[in-house]
Amino acid sequence: MTEPLPQDDFLAALRDVGARKYHDKHRFHVLMNEGHLTPAQLKVWALNRFYYQRSIPAKDCALMAKMPMPLDRRRWRQRLLDQDGTGPEDEGGIEKWLRLVEACGGTRDEAWRAEGLLPGVRFAVDAYVHFVRDEPWVIGVASSLTELFSPALMSLRIAAFEQHYPWVAAEGLTYFRGRPTRANKDSDHAIELVLAHCTTRALQRQAIGALDFKCDLLWAQLDAIYAHCVGT
Amino acid sequence: MTEPLPQDDFLAALRDVGARKYHDKHRFHVLMNEGHLTPAQLKVWALNRFYYQRSIPAKDCALMAKMPMPLDRRRWRQRLLDQDGTGPEDEGGIEKWLRLVEACGGTRDEAWRAEGLLPGVRFAVDAYVHFVRDEPWVIGVASSLTELFSPALMSLRIAAFEQHYPWVAAEGLTYFRGRPTRANKDSDHAIELVLAHCTTRALQRQAIGALDFKCDLLWAQLDAIYAHCVGT
Repeated sequence: MTEPLPQDDFLAALRDVGARKYHDKHRFHVLMNEGHLTPAQLKVWALNRFYYQRSIPAKDCALMAKMPMPLDRRRWRQRLLDQDGTGPEDEGGIEKWLRLVEACGGTRDEAWRAEGLLPGVRFAVDAYVHFVRDEPWVIGVASSLTELFSPALMSLRIAAFEQHYPWVAAEGLTYFRGRPTRANKDSDHAIELVLAHCTTRALQRQAIGALDFKCDLLWAQLDAIYAHCVGT
Repeated sequence: MTEPLPQDDFLAALRDVGARKYHDKHRFHVLMNEGHLTPAQLKVWALNRFYYQRSIPAKDCALMAKMPMPLDRRRWRQRLLDQDGTGPEDEGGIEKWLRLVEACGGTRDEAWRAEGLLPGVRFAVDAYVHFVRDEPWVIGVASSLTELFSPALMSLRIAAFEQHYPWVAAEGLTYFRGRPTRANKDSDHAIELVLAHCTTRALQRQAIGALDFKCDLLWAQLDAIYAHCVGT
């Protein structure tokens, strides 16, 4: 009864969380992907999601602060390089998201000043950083596994923007174009770590719970954005 | 009275902390540099200080987790790369310190298992990580300024080892040889950040206090090692 799940069952349980709860199915994303959002609504979304983007390095640094082994950190820190960039050739995910904000009619300054940041978005994002800071590091790793489900959403989003929102400059979509490759690499590493370190049933349960929690906090951001943009 | 100190006075106050309190003057370092330590004592020192070395990335990640701007993190993360390494060509400071442990008669395994880690060393090192995690990020930066004082100690140490402890393989000293250049680069960046962000007298005082605290925790590690190796 307290035996750990076989690896395949554990992986299936993780994938099942995404199948049930990943925010690709949120009604705000449905509106977005069907082309029903106004420029003002897309701007609210881009500006609010910037708070998530800018907080990702805080989450990854908090996680690395607890990872005991240099070789694990060495590999995980690629996420920090991806998000913060390495130089003029590779300016990083945060900068790319700022381009999206601009393409949606916002300014970099509004983004950094968190103007119009909705409380529900702030709470959800901060909850993520705090979770990773406070939980065992491998549970923080498990919470990153939404990247298993993001590539499909990114592809759908690029197609939807090209079709329905041609006024958003192609430049603004750079962030999404690079994500699937990175997300696959990142989730491969995360799966490796979770399988290697969640070796008890209790840890497996915690890992599944962490992914559930992560889906909740992604969903809650869209709830807040939907309520503000569309109504409740 | 609450005006911020002019930059030169602020810098002088920071340097004065090091002049008074940096651990180069600790009696354990005096014994070391005069060639009076036994192999067993050097081994205790190398193993215990490894706990400090392996905790440095935790400190730097905790600090970066609070740094708001990508460009500041981008520059600060060089410390993470220095300590964790980048590949076979550059294996990083932690690995270099493990070579010192081996050259002093210890094993990597003893080092990672923290065998013989003295409580006073553990408390001091953990206090550093907690301080940086909990204080404003620029105050964490200020606490790193002991690097202003380390190059002289590193040079003295290399000479002392070559003269007095020829049984320690040259390979074991690699960590020290690379430090002065890196410490100078790191402290230049830290000084820039502290001057740019500690713009009130209160923050200047906190920064000076952080450096004082850092000197204390370096000193306390040697107190614990001295007490164990030599007596009180």
